[in-house]
Amino acid sequence: MSNSLSSLLTIIESVDSFPYIENPYYWKFRSHDGALLGYITPEIASRFIDLPHSKYFEVDKLKKEVTIAGALNDFEERNKVFAEIASDWRKSDDLLNKGWRDELYTVYYPRTKPYMLLERAFSCLLGVVTYGVHINGYIPAEKTKDKVLKMWIPRRSPTKATYPGKLDNTIAGGLGYPYGLWENVVKECYEEGGLDADFVTKNITATGAVTYICQPYGPEGHAQPEIEYTYDLVFESEIDNIPHPVDGEAENFTLMTVEEVKQRMINGEFKPNCALVICDFLIRHGIITAENEPNYLEVLSRLHRRFPFATRN
Amino acid sequence: MSNSLSSLLTIIESVDSFPYIENPYYWKFRSHDGALLGYITPEIASRFIDLPHSKYFEVDKLKKEVTIAGALNDFEERNKVFAEIASDWRKSDDLLNKGWRDELYTVYYPRTKPYMLLERAFSCLLGVVTYGVHINGYIPAEKTKDKVLKMWIPRRSPTKATYPGKLDNTIAGGLGYPYGLWENVVKECYEEGGLDADFVTKNITATGAVTYICQPYGPEGHAQPEIEYTYDLVFESEIDNIPHPVDGEAENFTLMTVEEVKQRMINGEFKPNCALVICDFLIRHGIITAENEPNYLEVLSRLHRRFPFATRN
Repeated sequence: MSNSLSSLLTIIESVDSFPYIENPYYWKFRSHDGALLGYITPEIASRFIDLPHSKYFEVDKLKKEVTIAGALNDFEERNKVFAEIASDWRKSDDLLNKGWRDELYTVYYPRTKPYMLLERAFSCLLGVVTYGVHINGYIPAEKTKDKVLKMWIPRRSPTKATYPGKLDNTIAGGLGYPYGLWENVVKECYEEGGLDADFVTKNITATGAVTYICQPYGPEGHAQPEIEYTYDLVFESEIDNIPHPVDGEAENFTLMTVEEVKQRMINGEFKPNCALVICDFLIRHGIITAENEPNYLEVLSRLHRRFPFATRN
Repeated sequence: MSNSLSSLLTIIESVDSFPYIENPYYWKFRSHDGALLGYITPEIASRFIDLPHSKYFEVDKLKKEVTIAGALNDFEERNKVFAEIASDWRKSDDLLNKGWRDELYTVYYPRTKPYMLLERAFSCLLGVVTYGVHINGYIPAEKTKDKVLKMWIPRRSPTKATYPGKLDNTIAGGLGYPYGLWENVVKECYEEGGLDADFVTKNITATGAVTYICQPYGPEGHAQPEIEYTYDLVFESEIDNIPHPVDGEAENFTLMTVEEVKQRMINGEFKPNCALVICDFLIRHGIITAENEPNYLEVLSRLHRRFPFATRN
């Protein structure tokens, strides 16, 4: 894999792009008792000053911080106020309007406890941590006819709002309220791949999580800290339980050898964070190793970025 | 595993104990061209001032840095000078003298390139990154008679200089010069467990690395950044290829269920960094999950600490 030697870190850097040094450009978004919830752009911060709801926020221009006021110390109240703000901003914010999903994401604080619910597209504007499940469906080398590990890779529908036509993880979905991880896994496995719960339960293993902070709109765009819980789903043969699109999010599924997957990752054919999830898979399965990847340790650390934010667990 | 809920992060914190915030207590140890190689205590830093070899070092008390002088820009020269210093210091440094191994460790800089060789025990005093291989030998659940995953766990010899009598990873060893990772794996598998190279080659998978900075001598003691490359070694049954001590580093091997391993980890029966390696194993195998470990994400990040130092790869 000589031509991939420098490319894997390039993939990681393109996703985990937020600088590791203190970044004075971004403002801090804090809970009513001071916990760091996210990073916001100066433009988003400025919107909190003249807001109809401005009494619920303290804006400190010197410290560059927007803090939820002590008055907003109730879960339901926070949900209501942020729903109103999202609804207002949607009228003038194209990104929020186009990305609107009518789906709620949970902000956690302190650990394991829901702090507030936000419209999925609004989470991006507020730079808070979002969560998803990403599942690598594969056939172990010893169970394929040519004795090489193969992965089930879907192509995203050409009509998807984000990354249309790109390659994806076998199954992947954001963790919306009120689903738990396992419910979400079962739901997405059926909706995206037509896989039934019995098959999934019998063959899936939780394998960790990847954590990174991306900036999909460039170096001074919204910061998006993401946590993707990862799973391995073993298919026992190349001909049984073939995944097939149900909800139309995927156009089709192709069985690819691990070499083909690597090459397509390097070629930029995957949705970037899905390529990152596959890097983690390839490391855990001994396909990317310290011998063939000169930035092995840097890749490993950056797949597991430590967040300064409150997180789910 | 209710009684282990808070304990797994406790295990990680006891190993990865070096603070994440800038620590003004420690001095920086730098290469002749300014790369950070390690953290040293003020006491170690002070020894470089009146050294017979002091012309080879720049000691900056204001910045708290010891930098190898430009004159020492040759690999062989560095090895010679540091061997002389180690030999001198051994006379008065009890830790160095007792820990002396007559084994060389490689300091890497820039990435993948050996910068100098140091006596193993001297590496600890200079706070540079050291490397090892840690192998989890296990029998998958479906291949044991009671259908639970079991691990081969050795007890360290009561005469070992460090952590005598503690439980350990199946096979583990420091990466000494001039061995490569794979040579080291094969060598240690035979020496520590009597496992032959054919069996190992057929059944082993590289699975990543854990990275942490420990302080075995307390909060102001020597800082030790360590990188342990991890491997899974599958045993096909409970009765074949039973590991047995050859070099006497292990006293004996016991087959333990994963529940027993967890309980003994929580009880503090393992060498601490080996317990950390097993945490990584249990996460990758879906035994420690986001559902049963409330500090799952913090544990995952701290198993993969990002180093400010030059590293091997």
